[in-house]
Amino acid sequence: MATLSDIGVSALINILTAFAFLLAFAVLRIQPVNDRVYLPKWYINGGRSSPRSGGNFVAKFVNLDFETYLTFLNWMPKALKMSESELINHAGLDSAVFLRIYSLGFKIFVPITAVALLILIPVNVSSGTLFFLRKELVVSDIDKLSISNVPSKSVRQVQYKIFNEYLFAKFSSFSNELWWDYFRFFVHIGLEYLFTIWICYMLYKEYDNVATMRLRFLASQRRRAEQFTVVVRNVPQISGNSVSDSLDQFFKTNHPDTYLCHQAVYNANKFVKLMRKRDRLQNWLDYNQLKFERHSEKRPTKKTGFLGLWGKRVDSIDFYKQQIKEIDKNMALDRQKVLKDTKSILPVAFVSFKSRWGAAVCAQTQQSKNPTLWLTNWAPEPRDIYWQNLAIPFLSLTIRKLIISLSVFALVFFYMIPIAFVQSLANLEGLERVAPFLRPVIELKFIKSFLQGFLPGLALKIFLYILPTILMIMSNIEGHIALSTLERRASAKYYYFMLVNVFLGSIVTGTAFEQLHSFLHQSPTQIPRTIGVSIPMKATFFITYIMVDGWAGIAGEILRLKPLVIFHLKNMFLVKTERDREQAMDPGSVDYPETLPSLQLYFRLGIVYAVVTPILLPFILIFFAFAYLVYRHQIINVYNQRYESGAAFWPHVHSRIIASLVISQLLLLGLLSTKEAANSTPLLAILPILTLSFNQYCKHRFEPAFRRYPLEEAMKKDIMDQTTEPDINLTTFLADAYLHPIFRSFEEEELVEVRVDKVRVDKNQSYSSNAQSQTSDDHSSPSPPHHPTTSPPQDVYHHGFPPQYAYNFSSSTHYGYHYEAEPGNSRD
Amino acid sequence: MATLSDIGVSALINILTAFAFLLAFAVLRIQPVNDRVYLPKWYINGGRSSPRSGGNFVAKFVNLDFETYLTFLNWMPKALKMSESELINHAGLDSAVFLRIYSLGFKIFVPITAVALLILIPVNVSSGTLFFLRKELVVSDIDKLSISNVPSKSVRQVQYKIFNEYLFAKFSSFSNELWWDYFRFFVHIGLEYLFTIWICYMLYKEYDNVATMRLRFLASQRRRAEQFTVVVRNVPQISGNSVSDSLDQFFKTNHPDTYLCHQAVYNANKFVKLMRKRDRLQNWLDYNQLKFERHSEKRPTKKTGFLGLWGKRVDSIDFYKQQIKEIDKNMALDRQKVLKDTKSILPVAFVSFKSRWGAAVCAQTQQSKNPTLWLTNWAPEPRDIYWQNLAIPFLSLTIRKLIISLSVFALVFFYMIPIAFVQSLANLEGLERVAPFLRPVIELKFIKSFLQGFLPGLALKIFLYILPTILMIMSNIEGHIALSTLERRASAKYYYFMLVNVFLGSIVTGTAFEQLHSFLHQSPTQIPRTIGVSIPMKATFFITYIMVDGWAGIAGEILRLKPLVIFHLKNMFLVKTERDREQAMDPGSVDYPETLPSLQLYFRLGIVYAVVTPILLPFILIFFAFAYLVYRHQIINVYNQRYESGAAFWPHVHSRIIASLVISQLLLLGLLSTKEAANSTPLLAILPILTLSFNQYCKHRFEPAFRRYPLEEAMKKDIMDQTTEPDINLTTFLADAYLHPIFRSFEEEELVEVRVDKVRVDKNQSYSSNAQSQTSDDHSSPSPPHHPTTSPPQDVYHHGFPPQYAYNFSSSTHYGYHYEAEPGNSRD
Repeated sequence: MATLSDIGVSALINILTAFAFLLAFAVLRIQPVNDRVYLPKWYINGGRSSPRSGGNFVAKFVNLDFETYLTFLNWMPKALKMSESELINHAGLDSAVFLRIYSLGFKIFVPITAVALLILIPVNVSSGTLFFLRKELVVSDIDKLSISNVPSKSVRQVQYKIFNEYLFAKFSSFSNELWWDYFRFFVHIGLEYLFTIWICYMLYKEYDNVATMRLRFLASQRRRAEQFTVVVRNVPQISGNSVSDSLDQFFKTNHPDTYLCHQAVYNANKFVKLMRKRDRLQNWLDYNQLKFERHSEKRPTKKTGFLGLWGKRVDSIDFYKQQIKEIDKNMALDRQKVLKDTKSILPVAFVSFKSRWGAAVCAQTQQSKNPTLWLTNWAPEPRDIYWQNLAIPFLSLTIRKLIISLSVFALVFFYMIPIAFVQSLANLEGLERVAPFLRPVIELKFIKSFLQGFLPGLALKIFLYILPTILMIMSNIEGHIALSTLERRASAKYYYFMLVNVFLGSIVTGTAFEQLHSFLHQSPTQIPRTIGVSIPMKATFFITYIMVDGWAGIAGEILRLKPLVIFHLKNMFLVKTERDREQAMDPGSVDYPETLPSLQLYFRLGIVYAVVTPILLPFILIFFAFAYLVYRHQIINVYNQRYESGAAFWPHVHSRIIASLVISQLLLLGLLSTKEAANSTPLLAILPILTLSFNQYCKHRFEPAFRRYPLEEAMKKDIMDQTTEPDINLTTFLADAYLHPIFRSFEEEELVEVRVDKVRVDKNQSYSSNAQSQTSDDHSSPSPPHHPTTSPPQDVYHHGFPPQYAYNFSSSTHYGYHYEAEPGNSRD
Repeated sequence: MATLSDIGVSALINILTAFAFLLAFAVLRIQPVNDRVYLPKWYINGGRSSPRSGGNFVAKFVNLDFETYLTFLNWMPKALKMSESELINHAGLDSAVFLRIYSLGFKIFVPITAVALLILIPVNVSSGTLFFLRKELVVSDIDKLSISNVPSKSVRQVQYKIFNEYLFAKFSSFSNELWWDYFRFFVHIGLEYLFTIWICYMLYKEYDNVATMRLRFLASQRRRAEQFTVVVRNVPQISGNSVSDSLDQFFKTNHPDTYLCHQAVYNANKFVKLMRKRDRLQNWLDYNQLKFERHSEKRPTKKTGFLGLWGKRVDSIDFYKQQIKEIDKNMALDRQKVLKDTKSILPVAFVSFKSRWGAAVCAQTQQSKNPTLWLTNWAPEPRDIYWQNLAIPFLSLTIRKLIISLSVFALVFFYMIPIAFVQSLANLEGLERVAPFLRPVIELKFIKSFLQGFLPGLALKIFLYILPTILMIMSNIEGHIALSTLERRASAKYYYFMLVNVFLGSIVTGTAFEQLHSFLHQSPTQIPRTIGVSIPMKATFFITYIMVDGWAGIAGEILRLKPLVIFHLKNMFLVKTERDREQAMDPGSVDYPETLPSLQLYFRLGIVYAVVTPILLPFILIFFAFAYLVYRHQIINVYNQRYESGAAFWPHVHSRIIASLVISQLLLLGLLSTKEAANSTPLLAILPILTLSFNQYCKHRFEPAFRRYPLEEAMKKDIMDQTTEPDINLTTFLADAYLHPIFRSFEEEELVEVRVDKVRVDKNQSYSSNAQSQTSDDHSSPSPPHHPTTSPPQDVYHHGFPPQYAYNFSSSTHYGYHYEAEPGNSRD
């Protein structure tokens, strides 16, 4: 096992790595040529259009102002300057609340660290009496500072002695030292109680805060399409009636006073694929044209075979132009098919109401006698919709969910095997046994320390790298129709994976591989003892993990190496106009499916080790503070969220911290039972029950704010609207809010056809094809540029689709799922 | 352990008991004097007003028509005559669906019994090769017919040999006998699959049926107050505003188009207590007056002390008259207080809407930003409301629920100890050891058989007798506001109790007490083996249990000994008028909290033992058939349900049968692992997962029909109403539907005060105090006598309150909870 000096080496390496990243970031950041990599949010928000620099040609690419190099950490205070309400306006509620998780972690752990270090370290170090576990398990230096050091058999003695004392009333003969042991033991239990109460208090306060913020945010939003709209799934197919007809009929009957209109959904998945292929070809064409412009002496050529490796050599520009022409023809055909074929109308629709109240009522009630038909739910905001999944037949969803949950179970529990194998290698003795020829290298003192401190964490990290993609594909198969839901589901899967494999797997399996034989052949009462004993033993592993993943990883986040490289590659080969450059920008966004569960691991480590090995806490504190700064900087300057869910992820954050609390209590129970102080278990057993009922209470008290829209609020906003803008035409406002983005590229006369079922409702309003232009105008009205919402400014949005949807070969396959292609290219 | 002959004796005893009960019933039933005990439902329904008999004086009390004695089982075909739709009209949907559970049990187990007996008994008996368990555990004769008899080690041999055969392709040398063993083993697994599929199929069909029946029932109901009404809890107290004012304001704002009126709820619990006391005194007065009339020579006297044991001797009639006068004064005072004091208005109200659609919307949506305020839910029907619990502050409900769930947990798990103790005594060897002086008696062959066959079941039954009362009190403390919910909750608690204590407790603890020592000191892999082995060993115990509880118990149910005695006592001492006699009738009702979980035990036994010890199945079949007949007779002739929930209990019935299926699969897994055929476990492990996903599917598909009211249905009924009765005055119809029954005894001028907040809404409708009489007239209109609903006929209902609410000293404390007193007495 790792010793204190191993930790020291690891800490040094990671601190150096982190500093190297920060330094690199500081230098790269102030180069004007990187401006769009490190400040894309400001470009998107319209706050910036070009790097601020002198007129010098060189200064356009390299920063010559050497003073700025000296203050290379000045992004930190800058990141802290923006107030929370400004942050919400700037980046949305999701981002602001995401940051609150880090500050919550910091606020929770500062007092815990202080108390734990002040009280527990002296208590544990001073009891140098018994190293009763040494013979059975290898104990590292750091364990001296942990609970392993509290003597176990002596406590039994104490209890027995106390009993004797009590019986014979020989109080004077009772030795001071035993009292001291006894006291030490209950200090741990007392602190567990104290920490639980403190964490619950902070969680309650924070849940209250976030719920209020969410409601205030929703109330402050201006008129938005999703407030009036409900998504209806599984519309029954009545023979002879079109989907549109049965929709109209059903909602006119059952919501006569509030029903306004609906938007049918077309199955355009094939068209989207063609569009995507066309974009790819267009990129190659652009690349070749640019190449030809720069070196006009030679026309670029390519081979037609696979990857251009063999086949006839042709002129590239002509080849791609030909290909694009063909695909355009196909697209035109497919477009006609989508519009004409009734089969391409899916049994899904976006139904809009005259008031928010009507939509709230429809979303929360059951419509039909058969509970699998006419399923209503809040519509996600238009940019949050994952169109592809709307085409999935509703009936297959149940089976899909079953299959996916079985696969997740298999993934979570059988992924363990390779991890355990790698970790058993990371035990140096094991590595030497497997590969004895490496011995001379490994035995070098420095390399040994390096390997022991660095390897286990790194191996794990590599394993985890490909995982989010798999989980996102799995969530995708489950068929959720909103990006935000997809990400939350992927996040949940990742959470279980981290819990079982990284946390429990590291504690149990790591040990199990070391002593598998004795583990299998011992009596059942021995098992909790083994698990309990493993916890403090694994503290060193987790400390290195925190440094590798938490410190160096976060420093890597701010450097944005991958987007930096890709941006410059694109800039070199594809960018012709300023508009192209804008599209080459990849601001990215907070990676919820990966970040939230990782964060939970730090909470869990902090909570579990607070009482057991408090020396781990300062590492976690540094992580929370550093990550807070970095993410605050990134959210302000870089990230551009793809959607706004109004902090819908908070209930998960809350309940998972509670789960960590319960886990810590159960593990402490196991650990204490190894001290043969089983008498103290009833004292601890009450705690999980109380914690879980606290969770129930919070769920009951706050969760509805995240799941349902109260009628009172809806009515209030409706009334406000009526008084401020009594004669707004909602029909035109909602007209194409939920139109598949692909249709925005269609020619106008076709578009009228698509919209025809929207119009049918208010024929009397003389809605003709010349209302077309008016529609787009009205559409921009809900969020004019000056208005503080999180949607991108209208001058971008208005062109068709926000730029983060733009298809480009680097970002679209980031998670194994694809965003819809941006039609702008093909229109120009 | 019990042998086959023990079972024989037990069967004989129980069949004799059952026949004795049936015979007694047959004789008692046809005596005119018992007519009101055995046919009360017809009296209540108005179908009967006096026993049909000759004019002879003796014939009024004793049946002299000796022919009728000969056909003493003729109630059975009579019970089967009524069709299901007639039954629904006669006794309500709850009762009809309750009967379907028995017929479902019968339909499920007939083919299973046939298949199991035909296939398994030969398979198990023929394998007389190994009694490998004999040394470790005592095996009874009946176990020969069960799976215990399938050899275990030989299977291992088989598998090994098959593997060898395969490798060396020496197919001819493979012995026939081993093939036979191998085949026998997989017959059990195959049958488990077959039975699971069959049971799931039947459950699906039945759930579909019941859901359809429920929706048809709800659709066929005429206008009823609960269709338009929502119960609102936790109305916030705004200073300066009365509860009524804030209610009006809130619902006028948020449901402007549909809100009609509301009924505030008064805290009349104290008044109810006084009323109850007055009734008790009135009963004593009646008793004494009757006594005096009959023996007019001597005025009855009593002592004033405790229970009339000491104190001054006074004239009874004067004493009770005096007491009643005093209590009347108190009641008048309290009545004033309830009406005048604003504190007696609870933050609960019944809010009525203009349409069913409006009520459905309000019941299913969240009203307020704060999810703990303005909680809306469907109002139970007026006679289903448990008024007492409306006064419980909503905030305390969370804590109450926590406390009760902890107590239920404690009750379920620590009640086990006495049961296990009694059962260890029921082991005769144990009994002899504890009480050696009993040996000579016990050793008599007949008594030994009797004790072994009868004791274990009986001991358990006595334990279970006091339990429902405790559980009902617990559910009561949880604060549910509907009788039906209370009963369902008590039923759930009873179910868990039966599952853990009667079923698992009998399997595990019974064995554990026999071999506690070896159990504690064996390795963990041995534990599932022990549990698995116990299952077939306990078959004999459960067979006796089925006979005692199922056969004799059901026969006792039809005899109605307790109501019979109480009716005649009342008749003798209290009854003066025909009306009194009507009130002395105690029809009772199906005792859901106790009957449903007991039923589930039979399902569980049948499902678990179907594959293991199929000889148990015929006993269960007889139970289902017999119980079906008895309950059908009782429901037609005796029971009068207190409420109608529209089969709301079905989802519980369904999911608990599913739970039994999963338990049976897991236990079979355990049992097979004892056969050292652990290789077969993956084959069985898939089954629970599939079963649970089937349950998920059913829940999703059918449960909403039991929890929510679809808007489509509401709208359909609304439209139908508008066309048939366009100008009905809903306000007057709903006026006092949800008035606390106690207020019906108030003088009319006071009643106007109570109703004043109902009226406020439609002042313009000139609703004055003379609308009073009109109100009561309208109130009777929703269900005229000829109409086929389940509510009692209006000529009874109209008098104030249906007679089953009548307070009388025998029935009101039946479950430890009290129904509201019937005010009729004090009015006359």
